[in-house]
Amino acid sequence: MVKGRGPRIITLTTDFGTKDPFVGIMKGVILGICSGVEIIDITHQIECYQLLEAALVVKATYRYFPSGTIHLIVVDPGVGSERRPLLVETEHHLFVAPDNGVLSLIYREEGWKRVREITARSYFLQEVSDTFHGRDIFAPVAAWLARGENPASFGPPINDYIHLSLPLPVRIDHGLRGEVIYVDRFGNLMSNIEQGLLSSGWSPHSRKYCRVVVGGTVIEGINDYYGQVPPGEVGAIFNSWGYLEIFVNQGSAQQRLSLGTGAKVELLLDQGFS
Amino acid sequence: MVKGRGPRIITLTTDFGTKDPFVGIMKGVILGICSGVEIIDITHQIECYQLLEAALVVKATYRYFPSGTIHLIVVDPGVGSERRPLLVETEHHLFVAPDNGVLSLIYREEGWKRVREITARSYFLQEVSDTFHGRDIFAPVAAWLARGENPASFGPPINDYIHLSLPLPVRIDHGLRGEVIYVDRFGNLMSNIEQGLLSSGWSPHSRKYCRVVVGGTVIEGINDYYGQVPPGEVGAIFNSWGYLEIFVNQGSAQQRLSLGTGAKVELLLDQGFS
Amino acid sequence: MVKGRGPRIITLTTDFGTKDPFVGIMKGVILGICSGVEIIDITHQIECYQLLEAALVVKATYRYFPSGTIHLIVVDPGVGSERRPLLVETEHHLFVAPDNGVLSLIYREEGWKRVREITARSYFLQEVSDTFHGRDIFAPVAAWLARGENPASFGPPINDYIHLSLPLPVRIDHGLRGEVIYVDRFGNLMSNIEQGLLSSGWSPHSRKYCRVVVGGTVIEGINDYYGQVPPGEVGAIFNSWGYLEIFVNQGSAQQRLSLGTGAKVELLLDQGFS
Repeated sequence: MVKGRGPRIITLTTDFGTKDPFVGIMKGVILGICSGVEIIDITHQIECYQLLEAALVVKATYRYFPSGTIHLIVVDPGVGSERRPLLVETEHHLFVAPDNGVLSLIYREEGWKRVREITARSYFLQEVSDTFHGRDIFAPVAAWLARGENPASFGPPINDYIHLSLPLPVRIDHGLRGEVIYVDRFGNLMSNIEQGLLSSGWSPHSRKYCRVVVGGTVIEGINDYYGQVPPGEVGAIFNSWGYLEIFVNQGSAQQRLSLGTGAKVELLLDQGFS
Repeated sequence: MVKGRGPRIITLTTDFGTKDPFVGIMKGVILGICSGVEIIDITHQIECYQLLEAALVVKATYRYFPSGTIHLIVVDPGVGSERRPLLVETEHHLFVAPDNGVLSLIYREEGWKRVREITARSYFLQEVSDTFHGRDIFAPVAAWLARGENPASFGPPINDYIHLSLPLPVRIDHGLRGEVIYVDRFGNLMSNIEQGLLSSGWSPHSRKYCRVVVGGTVIEGINDYYGQVPPGEVGAIFNSWGYLEIFVNQGSAQQRLSLGTGAKVELLLDQGFS
Repeated sequence: MVKGRGPRIITLTTDFGTKDPFVGIMKGVILGICSGVEIIDITHQIECYQLLEAALVVKATYRYFPSGTIHLIVVDPGVGSERRPLLVETEHHLFVAPDNGVLSLIYREEGWKRVREITARSYFLQEVSDTFHGRDIFAPVAAWLARGENPASFGPPINDYIHLSLPLPVRIDHGLRGEVIYVDRFGNLMSNIEQGLLSSGWSPHSRKYCRVVVGGTVIEGINDYYGQVPPGEVGAIFNSWGYLEIFVNQGSAQQRLSLGTGAKVELLLDQGFS
């Protein structure tokens, strides 16, 4: 793993919310072990226990951080049970998270990787509760990594870690049927249809001639930017994460169409995809 | 521009919310370019696309930061269209924002200023999307500024940048009529009547003898602090930003009076303002 | 007081919310006085003016921060009135807050302490408003402390500071009756029954044989971790702060039982507590 220059960075992704002091407590533990580390909040508003939402957020985010960043993810419905804490090394990043599938999209994306079970209790807080491993296990492990401890010191490599699978689009007549997998603050409906995965039947011309069907609404063609449709109108776009997204210009597609996660989205081309 | 000592500071003001990882992604981009810069969140809860709200927040905030601070504002309904990215230099501060009027109150406040269109694509991320210039243009530009790049390197000065105007109070019989322009977390109703702009008819005595009329409620005199009226009662005050504000002590004026942005507020003196 | 190595840390606990720029303004003031200090948000979502909630959050949090940390708490319904600003020194920590009882649980917990009234106006901002002492008094005082100013310079020790008392559990037939004092993001109902204060009648066996009664629901035994009860079922646990808590595994006890702060909680043992 390449180490970045400057202070090490730890990112935090949790479902702890920002009302309670849970995140602040984790930061105190980190700073007590590794003074001067840079702690960056990704989000603490993952819907409680929603592992796939957290997996998507981590996938969309980690690559924008410098080499050597430590990504700490605590969405942990199984806290206190036998579920294992994991440390995952990839070429440029480190991930610390529970073994519940929350890193599934990292496993799929990154080429080289090594997944370790964290077993070295000497890196944990002295007393480990059964309800808050974010504080007692995950935060201290991330902090010790930021101090430069060797990943190998934390535990042995394993292969039987848990994978979750995102729903994938299916091929239908003249196109693909996917579904909404994420709704952002603006009410944009992000589907699981990835631009990068469209087959050879898809050309630059297809953007113009395709149709997107969602909840009874038919959208002609895919836009380049939101302002191409009039304010209040519905459009489709490949968003900043590379996924097909339904939007309302300066409005909320979620509210306008009364749709959310799970809603079917069809991308259709007269000649279909080859 | 005077440079502060210590690490450079970048403040962030957006309408991105805190649920999605958009802000975290911007921070990753910044730290990848300028390790060690101090990033301070002002707010990410500007109401979606509300340029005037953002303009007020920026005005109320920037002066409390040290010389050399870079203020990054991303409220950007026109993302992907022809609207230009701007870099504004003033005597003590730098501002990076879209050219949509979100900096209007800065233009009005600061004496010396130079407004540049950001044209130097070498400072952008390699791939620029049409949906997330916060990540691809604004964050990297702010980070390069924090590394010490000369503002002149980013693009030429322009004069035809966009101004928005806040509603201003109007003179009426015996006083002024303004309106509520901001409601804070406590439900305080902030009007556009600025203490600093009251005319010569206003004296220290006037605080005691004036009346404030809002939504049918008449408030006698202006208080010095919230606790001067009994808990649950309505009062008026010049708030910490210097504006006339309607409050309920230990309660919410917004809820109590069922009023919000746009509600008329009258400040009346028997002899009027000269 | 032992000073930590590395940059000094200031934690922030307020009821200012995250929508308005109040917290950002305080951070600007702090960084203008003490460049490079580490500022950590604990929460800004204390319910408006709820002193006991803030007191609980401070108590649950401060000990996880390194020696020398400065804890700044601004929940301040009496801003502008005669209520005094305080600086509290304990063996390892410093606290800056209004004298309204928000530090009551610190007074009770920490052995050695010295409580000072902050009187030295030279540490305040030049103009002190009557509505935002967080900006004008508390933030600058914390920043000057972070720069290494001697606590004695800020004002004289006092003894007549304000105490608030948390409701305490009472003894009943065969057990204790307490009440819910905090509800977290997950809907967990935290009572005021502290594990550390259970009397000698409580043994490791008692966990298994006790009953917890809350709002008509009877829970048999106390669990070690959430996953011990099936998803959607109600259980009881001693939480990460050491208090008896009612939870629903992967759900919300608050919603499921329609209970909140103030709800009675009984912990019963057939032989009672000695």
